[in-house]
This record gives sequence, C-alpha cells and structure tokens, in this order.
Amino acid sequence: MVPKIVDRQARRTLIAEALLRVTAAQGLEAVSVRHVAAEAGVSPGMVQHYFRTKDQMLQFALEVISERAEQRIGTRVAMLGQDPSPKELVRAVLVEMLPIDDERVLEAHIAVAFGARAATTPSIATRLGEQCAQLLEFLAARVRIAQRTGQASAHLDADCAARGLLALIDGLAMHALTQSNTAEMSLAVFDHHLDRLFATADVSNPAEAC
Amino acid sequence: MVPKIVDRQARRTLIAEALLRVTAAQGLEAVSVRHVAAEAGVSPGMVQHYFRTKDQMLQFALEVISERAEQRIGTRVAMLGQDPSPKELVRAVLVEMLPIDDERVLEAHIAVAFGARAATTPSIATRLGEQCAQLLEFLAARVRIAQRTGQASAHLDADCAARGLLALIDGLAMHALTQSNTAEMSLAVFDHHLDRLFATADVSNPAEAC
Repeated sequence: MVPKIVDRQARRTLIAEALLRVTAAQGLEAVSVRHVAAEAGVSPGMVQHYFRTKDQMLQFALEVISERAEQRIGTRVAMLGQDPSPKELVRAVLVEMLPIDDERVLEAHIAVAFGARAATTPSIATRLGEQCAQLLEFLAARVRIAQRTGQASAHLDADCAARGLLALIDGLAMHALTQSNTAEMSLAVFDHHLDRLFATADVSNPAEAC
Repeated sequence: MVPKIVDRQARRTLIAEALLRVTAAQGLEAVSVRHVAAEAGVSPGMVQHYFRTKDQMLQFALEVISERAEQRIGTRVAMLGQDPSPKELVRAVLVEMLPIDDERVLEAHIAVAFGARAATTPSIATRLGEQCAQLLEFLAARVRIAQRTGQASAHLDADCAARGLLALIDGLAMHALTQSNTAEMSLAVFDHHLDRLFATADVSNPAEAC
C-alpha cells in the first residue's frame, strides 16, 4: 500500500505544481483540466482521476504552497537558536511570506489570485480564513509576550497590531503584482513597521521612541 | 454633438457598472461580453460597439471605480474645514478605500480581482502602478509636513511610512474578501496604525509614545 500512496501524493503534487505555474503565468482564469494536464505532461483523464473538479485542484494547490511556506518558516525559526525574541520570531515567520525573491513573488501571485477567488468560492474563503486566524493568534501572542517583557509598548493593542502586520504582508504581496514595490522596498517597509512595533519609549531620547 | 457624447458616456458607464456587479458576484473569470450584456440589459453587439475587447471594458470599469472613490474623497476632504492636519487628510483619503460598508466591500472585491489580473495584464498593472505612485506621493508629503510641524516623529522614514499605509489598506481589502476582518476591525486596525504613525514621543509619559 505504501508505495501506491506515495505515488498518488507525488502525482497530485506534480499536477498542483503545474497548476501553480499556469496561475502565475496566466492567472487563475487560465486554469482548466486540459491546460493543467498539458503543463504537467499528463493526460486530461489523469488529472480528472486525481481531482474531480477545478475547485478540488485549487484547494490542493493552496495546501501545497502553504506546506512549502511552513517548511521555509520552520528552517528559518530553527536558525534563530535558543530563546529568540518575539520580534525575531515574528520576523522569521513573516519574511517568508514577503514577495522578495522569485519563488515568493510566484506565491504572492497565487495568494492574490486565491484571495480574489475566495470572494466567490466559499471553500477557499474558509481555508484562507482558517490560515489567517492561526497566524493572527501567533502574532498577537508574540506581541503580548513582548509587552510583558518590556520589548513593546504596553499601550499597543496586540490584536490590532497582529491584524495590521498581516494586512501589511498581504498588501505588499499585492503591490508586488503591480510592480509598485521592488523586493528591497517591500523588505524596508516591513522592517520599518516591525522596528516601530517592537519599540519602547526611550526616556533619555524620547524622539527615538517612534 | 453634446447630447451624443453624454449618451455615449452614460452607456459606457451603464455597461461598466454591469461588469462591476458581475465581478463582485462571480469574479473576473465570469466577465464576458455576453454575460455583461445580459446583466446590463443590452445586446452583446451594443457592448462590442463600446468596447472592442474585454481588457478595454476592464480598463474603463477601473476608471469608473477610481472616479467614484475620488468623488467620495473630495466630499470627505471638503468636510474637514480649513487647515486640516496631515493626519486628518491622510485619514479622509484612506478611509474611503477601506472595506467598511457594502459599496466599499464591492470595490475591494474589484480591486483585488484587478490586482490579480494585473499579474498577467501589463495595461492593468501600469494603470494600478500609476494610481499607486500618485497616492504614495500624497501620503509621503503629508508625513513630511507632519514631521516638520512636530506631528510625527522626525525619525520616521516618510517613504516607508507611505508604502506601509498603502499596503495596509490593500491588505485590509484582501482580508475583507476572506471575511477575516469585520468592518469594525478594519477601521480599528487602520486607526491604531494611524495613531501610532502620527505620534510624537511624550517626555512626561514616555510609554504613551508608541
């Protein structure tokens, strides 16, 4: 049984990756069983064997890019060493979602395409909403720890700060699509925001505080 | 000649509004000459008389929502009275782009749909990029004025702050589509960000600064 399961998963991933390439190049509108099959180098019947509908295919592709991002985040967090600060943890997670290299620009294309699709496809909206809720919880918890340990202002609203961070990241992804921001700009905007978020007032030089 | 021009513009607007309704309900994927004609209650030939391609129709619809937003912004700015502060001006402009009522949620759907389309349609990317550049210039100029007049920290990077504001707004629009944020949350996140941006350190109570 095991090799068969592995093979099935590998085939599904092969098809999902073809779907992601089609989406990045031509948008979700261009995604069809026929088109994805051609891109993957398999028959349309094979695609239909693994995914009965376009939405099933989209859902799986969304899982594939989430897993990829999670793996990169795991690696980056492991590199932080022992007892990383809340700011270091937040940065490690969110930098992997910024459109600052080819792979992440491709993922940004796909994230925005799925965001647009979510408006009309409840199953995608639900999945994105769940991912969003998990991430918000993580971010708000880090802000609260930073507040308790004097690494962020006690006057911050942790939930607002978390929602603001996530909106910033998704907005930067969107701006990557219109080529309004270069990779350097996206990173500078993000770090500027993070530096201000994890800042406490400095009595000796109050102007440094914000 | 004049009535004819007015009529032409009215017809184009009628068609564009039908396109916007189709997009909000079913996504840009569902936009076709036939579908938009049915929604507008005109013949497909009539639509093709005014717009030769789907992209021409999309471009015009983008102009229509930009104009609507500009009109709302103009009204809101006029209500600010004389000598509004940089923060009041920034708020007046950006609140009109937040997904906090039905009309603006519909516009958010369309903005994200166009954002996704921009990735594969250079003419839309160019138009969105131009709008983005104009808005960034306005926002950065307001931040610089606030800095010169002691209404924002001198240590802010005005360009980063402007790009951060715009990314925040577009990210909140995207989250409206996945129903991750309610209207109240979007507004709270925005105002929290704005309060922190236009804050100067308070020597008497340093913790208030950020």
